[in-house]
Amino acid sequence: MTKSPKHASGVFAAALTPLTADLSPDVARLAGHCRWLLDHGCDGLAVLGTTGEANSFSVDERLAILEGLAEAGIPGRALMPGTGCCAVPDTVRLTRRAVELGAAGVLVLPPFYYKNVSDDGLFAAYSEVIERVGDTRLKVYLYHFPQMSAVPISYGLIERLLERYPDTVAGMKDSSGDLDNMTGAARAFPGFAVFSGSEELFLPLLRAGGAGCITAVNNVASPLAARVYAGWREGNDIEADNGLLVAVRQAIVRYPLSAALKEIMARLTGDGDWRRVRPPLRPMEDGDAAALAGALDDAGYTPPPPP
Amino acid sequence: MTKSPKHASGVFAAALTPLTADLSPDVARLAGHCRWLLDHGCDGLAVLGTTGEANSFSVDERLAILEGLAEAGIPGRALMPGTGCCAVPDTVRLTRRAVELGAAGVLVLPPFYYKNVSDDGLFAAYSEVIERVGDTRLKVYLYHFPQMSAVPISYGLIERLLERYPDTVAGMKDSSGDLDNMTGAARAFPGFAVFSGSEELFLPLLRAGGAGCITAVNNVASPLAARVYAGWREGNDIEADNGLLVAVRQAIVRYPLSAALKEIMARLTGDGDWRRVRPPLRPMEDGDAAALAGALDDAGYTPPPPP
Repeated sequence: MTKSPKHASGVFAAALTPLTADLSPDVARLAGHCRWLLDHGCDGLAVLGTTGEANSFSVDERLAILEGLAEAGIPGRALMPGTGCCAVPDTVRLTRRAVELGAAGVLVLPPFYYKNVSDDGLFAAYSEVIERVGDTRLKVYLYHFPQMSAVPISYGLIERLLERYPDTVAGMKDSSGDLDNMTGAARAFPGFAVFSGSEELFLPLLRAGGAGCITAVNNVASPLAARVYAGWREGNDIEADNGLLVAVRQAIVRYPLSAALKEIMARLTGDGDWRRVRPPLRPMEDGDAAALAGALDDAGYTPPPPP
Repeated sequence: MTKSPKHASGVFAAALTPLTADLSPDVARLAGHCRWLLDHGCDGLAVLGTTGEANSFSVDERLAILEGLAEAGIPGRALMPGTGCCAVPDTVRLTRRAVELGAAGVLVLPPFYYKNVSDDGLFAAYSEVIERVGDTRLKVYLYHFPQMSAVPISYGLIERLLERYPDTVAGMKDSSGDLDNMTGAARAFPGFAVFSGSEELFLPLLRAGGAGCITAVNNVASPLAARVYAGWREGNDIEADNGLLVAVRQAIVRYPLSAALKEIMARLTGDGDWRRVRPPLRPMEDGDAAALAGALDDAGYTPPPPP
């Protein structure tokens, strides 16, 4: 498998967004978390994604997060921020600023309020964004997550977008959990970088020509995912590492992800402030938190101490 | 059936938002449409709802629409703007301004990006909005539209909100199409104003203690809905009017609603600019438009000429 060097690849964390006491984004703490992730196996960071509660923040809050990360020295080339909103002008504003700040790419949800919209309508929406941003540095990664957005990205749509914007449309994060959809896209569209949203499908997708993974669980498991990725590239035996990675995922994904991962961060750091989430999400219940901690102990993985 | 006069009732249109050539809201034309609706049977206007493509506009664009309607003399007491966004700060900003402008109520979607969230999380989201706005004039109408938002409003949530905010939580627009859900809520929560999102369920809901209807089709059928409503209040025979209203609805709802209603407005006014929609919505195809026109002719209803 070869990927054009212009495209992203490898292990990405869909970074959590820590919050202050009034539930505002804690950008300083986020920057520290991002540095830790980049120092521990992440090739890049999908900040402001589903796990990062992006859609629970106003566009101004999201812009402040991007600015704050730049000021804190997180390199733009490591970032693939989520910028897809329901309203095209919001997506344009976020995308434009991300590109100006040097982001390697942007992860763009389709407009997700209206359901059962046509591929024509989704093409028009992506097209408006790409043309209004109008920047040759822009690299768009489509975000296929039908269980959450309820607006799937079809192969037909990808094909039309690649045909019209071959230098801009760079890949897809596929969080559908459907390996066939991922491998089919990697096969059908050479050079189109397909990322798995799940650890379980990471290695199978790599083997079928995929580009990597962008996952929530990488907030705490990136060193492990990096070992799998490096081992796969070098042709080493990675079954044990991969089995552990998948076990860690399985212990976590039975709970709502952002709250569960923030619970783990709170335990790892000894700082309960990590537990804060914005409504409509809720922190984990104590009983679930204890069960999660037990399941992670059983899996037998402890990440290096975070900052 | 008696409803507290503090609550809205009757016939509401979920007003369309006309667009300019660059797909910005055409506020002057919207104001004209609102006046026409209020002069032709509407008791109130749910501007910036699903039909009005609200979630395709930025918060600033939505605020400009509210300001523009106030400047154009549309009375706040006739307005029930949609203000529910994914991000609580956005909902707070829109809701606060709507209240300042004298809106009779606000129609508030739950945060709709995250799916399968708990009632606890939705209660926390509505609670944050109500407390941050912190205005005794605020009247919240919950917006239950599971087919579009994919985040339903349960009776348990309504009960908790009414218990905590009895003077603020005023009612619900139920667009589920499930009459039992509407009548059950009207029965379970006395004084809670339940509006049907459908003409077919308007009269059955009125008879079961509901407050009225808030519908897309009222953009072109409000004179007819008003006759049904007045006839029901006065105890007249309204079967013929109601049958015609339902027939008009059935002719329209087989198509995506905003585009179909804008198509009808374009035909009625002879002005094709009415056809514009924002992506991800698309204007009607010519063939569908002709079929719709034919079906409306067959139904035998022509609204009074709009402005």
